[in-house]
Order: sequence, then structure tokens, then C-alpha cells
Amino acid sequence: MIIDKLVKKIQETNAPIVVGLDPMLDYVPDHIKEEAFLQWGETLEGAAEAIWKFNKGIIDEIYDVVPAVKPQIAMYEQFGIYGLATFKKTVDYCHEKGLIVIGDVKRGDIGSTSSAYATAHLGTITIGENKFKPFDEDFATVNPYLGTDGIAPFTDVCADEGTGIFILVKTSNPSSGEFQDREIDGEKLYEIVAKKVDEWGAGLIGECGYSSVGAVVGATYPEVGKVLRSIMPKNYILVPGYGAQGGKAEDLAAYFNDDGLGAIVNSSRGIICAYKKDQYAEFGAKDFAKASRAAAIDMREDINKYR
Amino acid sequence: MIIDKLVKKIQETNAPIVVGLDPMLDYVPDHIKEEAFLQWGETLEGAAEAIWKFNKGIIDEIYDVVPAVKPQIAMYEQFGIYGLATFKKTVDYCHEKGLIVIGDVKRGDIGSTSSAYATAHLGTITIGENKFKPFDEDFATVNPYLGTDGIAPFTDVCADEGTGIFILVKTSNPSSGEFQDREIDGEKLYEIVAKKVDEWGAGLIGECGYSSVGAVVGATYPEVGKVLRSIMPKNYILVPGYGAQGGKAEDLAAYFNDDGLGAIVNSSRGIICAYKKDQYAEFGAKDFAKASRAAAIDMREDINKYR
Repeated sequence: MIIDKLVKKIQETNAPIVVGLDPMLDYVPDHIKEEAFLQWGETLEGAAEAIWKFNKGIIDEIYDVVPAVKPQIAMYEQFGIYGLATFKKTVDYCHEKGLIVIGDVKRGDIGSTSSAYATAHLGTITIGENKFKPFDEDFATVNPYLGTDGIAPFTDVCADEGTGIFILVKTSNPSSGEFQDREIDGEKLYEIVAKKVDEWGAGLIGECGYSSVGAVVGATYPEVGKVLRSIMPKNYILVPGYGAQGGKAEDLAAYFNDDGLGAIVNSSRGIICAYKKDQYAEFGAKDFAKASRAAAIDMREDINKYR
Repeated sequence: MIIDKLVKKIQETNAPIVVGLDPMLDYVPDHIKEEAFLQWGETLEGAAEAIWKFNKGIIDEIYDVVPAVKPQIAMYEQFGIYGLATFKKTVDYCHEKGLIVIGDVKRGDIGSTSSAYATAHLGTITIGENKFKPFDEDFATVNPYLGTDGIAPFTDVCADEGTGIFILVKTSNPSSGEFQDREIDGEKLYEIVAKKVDEWGAGLIGECGYSSVGAVVGATYPEVGKVLRSIMPKNYILVPGYGAQGGKAEDLAAYFNDDGLGAIVNSSRGIICAYKKDQYAEFGAKDFAKASRAAAIDMREDINKYR
């Protein structure tokens, strides 16, 4: 089961962290953009090529120090079909390098539509005599607003294919409280969703004791993290919001279980854009990927101090 | 503003309906599949080509009797990059034929990620000296679970580009009640979301008096439709669930305002798969698209009886 593979990789690297591969064109050093534009022009193809080269550079430097990456598909989708081809190429290359890939796609629909999304990202499609894995991530993020009808098609595919999902429970943004924090019969909506996550994941518990159905809980609400940890003891928590969004390592202790497992913390800009920060400026734009490696190692130390 | 264009098209065609272009490979007649597979093999390319030909046939027969189409991107995404290229080709061809395109993408994220989705589907990206419209729909569907931080980047792009969104409020599926129907301080969650939709759309009211920010409310809960109609007097309601999912025309009267406007009803399978129904069997698989035309006209008559 994929959760067993994730836990094993976290233990091997001693790094409960995931690198968000969320490239903006602004993040890509000029020398890479210039080369791509020289070949493809200032086009969607050129931008997609620049982002691919940027990603590849970073993957080559981080694949042995982190267990997983989380490409945010929106950042690729904005470059149209070419961008999505780079997304797919990135997923495949990460797999080649042994990384676990969490597709941050936040899909949410119902019935056959939800099945189609699950097939696209976590499953296999049969065309005549042939089988294909369209995007082939290991995990995908999923939105719970439509209820069980939206989630069950995903867990069905996960059961068949040995893949997994992380369901949005409490997001890291300031306005996440508008709906998620509202109180229903004495409980917050995020608690009600969390209980469902526990239920939805019950059939997919791996040998490690955790489920291949996890939850997304933002780093920016540590007191909420503590409550949700106890509601979902067997669900891995994917934690966005560390670093750039203001979440601190000392606040994250509550997201981990006593076994030191149960959470994986994401950083995107903080790692892929490290070369632009004073702290890593010595690397310069040419060695942007080495700056990312240094930042990933520093993040690992920071998180491990408190877990 | 795009809502003015939509209302005008609805008035011209006298058809407050939208055709869901949600093709499954099973829906495509054999003669189309055989031709596509002969050229491209039983591959993702072959499947994507078959779906493109299927869509094109239907679009050619319905473009003058309906105002809009709603391609469901999941159905394309399951065929990987090739499927998404067919999605884009479909959007472009619909525009050529004068149809309004509602991209059923149900995206939902925050900040720069939400902006990237909005750019991808409803906006323009600048690369060096050049500008591109990556997917170029007129409207997109959006998930509200993350609150204002998820919606504002979309409405910003809509204001700049003259495009629009439909926000999920109450979905048509049986389990939509798990979270959406929960009561908070005497109101249902869907009512609280609806009030926000009204607020989010206030800055994008067109000359027709409606906002380019609409709502999705399923046909399967007519009593809820009535309540939501009154909470959101200026927001167009996109109504899924008619036909195959059980929603009936007589139940939909409450979704319209007294001006006979304010709602647009979707049918997917009921129209694109009409040739498989007894009622339209006379057309046969060769004339599948003519069956779709007949079904669209019948649906228009059915809806107009009660609005």
C-alpha cells in the first residue's frame, strides 16, 4: 500500500517533509528561461520547457534527501497543454528518481466524474486491449464538499491500484474559517469532515498502521492541528503553510503522533526559490538547485527538532 | 460582461439549457471509434480523437438550438494530455460556432494557486512579449470550501477579462447533505455559502441585472432551489441533475425568477447519448448527433413549459 511506501521513505530519509514543485515563471533563473525561449520562443511551449528544466534541476538535487514531492497542477495548467505535459514529465521523472508524488489537484466531483478524475490521477484506463496510466501520481488531494459520493470513487480506485488521497480538512489560508470553522451541533465543520476522513480511510490501513487516506491540515492553525490529530489517529496529515505562509516548526509538534510519524510538512517557495533568499544567496542563480538542496536539509533539521 | 452574452443567447434560442459535453468512450458510436483506432491505435491518442469527432458531430447539430455547452474536464483528463488537447479543441470549436462555454472544472484553491487556475481557464498569461489564453472558457465552476481566499482570485480575473464563474452551493448528489445541509446558527451551510455568493458577485452585475458570478444548485432538491433562488436574486443558477439524475422540469419552476430568467439547466447523457434511448432509437448510431439535436429541442420544450 502506498502509505507504507511513504512511511518507509520518510524513515529512510529521516525527513517528514515534501517539496512543493509549484513553479512560477518568475522563479526560474534567467539562464534557463533564455535557453528555453531561444529554442521555443516566448510561448506556452517555451515557458513549459523552462519550468521542466527548473524542476529537473531541483529534483536531481533533492531526490536523496526528501521522500516526496507535491507538484501543484494549477501552476502547470496555466501554461495550457504544454504546461500539463511538463506536469506529467515531472511526475515520471520523480518516479524514476524514487520519489513519491502527491498530485496537488484538489479535485472534487461525484459519481462517474469523480471516477474519471481518480482514473486520470491515480488509476488505469483501458482502451481496447491496452492499459494506460494517464497522470500516474501516487497520491492526489481531494475536496470533501460533495460528501461521500465524491470520495468513494477515489477510495475505490485507491484500493484497486494501491494509491492514496489527502482530503482537505482545514486549510492554511486566513479565510478558511468562513465555512470550515462554523459550528454544527457543538462541533466545527472541520471536525465533522475529519471524522468522515477517519471513516473513509478505515478500509485502507497499511502495515504501518496508517491509512492511504490522509488529511490536509494547515500549519497556520496549530491548536486545530492538535484536535484533528486526535480525531484522525490513523490518517497521515499533509501540512501546508510552513515557512512562507507563517507556520513554524515548533507549532507542528502536535501534528505528529508519539511514534514521530503521522505528518508530512510541505514547503514550496521556501525550497524551490531558496536561491532568492538572503540565507542561500551565496549559491547564486546558476546553482539554484543546490540552494534548494541546502534549504531542504535545513527544513528537515528544523522540523526534526520538534517532532 | 459574459452574463449579458449568456442571457442574450438564452433569449435568442429561447432555451435556458446547456448541453453537458461529458463523453465517456462507451458513448461514442463504433464507426467513430473504429476510424480513430485505425489511425491512432487503441491508445490515449485514439480515444481522444474518437471523443473529438463525437463532440464535433454533436456541436454541429446543436449550436443553433442551445446557448451554451458545459464540457466536464474530468472526462478529458482521464485520457491524459491527449484528452486535454481534445478539451481545448472542443472549447475552441464551440466558440467558432458561437456557443458559450462553461468549463466544468470545479477548481478550488487559494492565493496564487487560485490565480493560476483562473488564468488557465478564464484569463490571459503573459510570456515575455506575448499573451495567451491557455484554455479560454467563458465560465468555470469553482468550489467554495476554502472561502473568499479561493474565490477572490477568480473574481479578479473575471473582472479583468469579462469572464464568469459558477460556485458550488448545493450539489445534486445524494450525499451532498453530509456537509452542505448541516445547520449552523439556524441556517444550512448551503444558505451561508449562498449569501457569500451573492456578496462575491455584487461587483460583477451586468446590464441584464444578473451577476457573472453564478451558483450551482442541483435539480434534485427543488425545495432547496426555491430558498436559494430568494437568497441569490441576482446570481444565475446552473442546474445539474435534470433527466438522468432524476430532476424533473416541473420541479424547476422555482429556480427561475419571474422574468423567466435566472437559471440554466444542464443535461449531459440525456442529450449526448440520446441515440441510445428508445425514444430516439430511430436515428441509429450513424445519426447519433441528429438524435442529440432532437433531444435538445425536446428538453427546451419540456423546461419552457414550466418556467
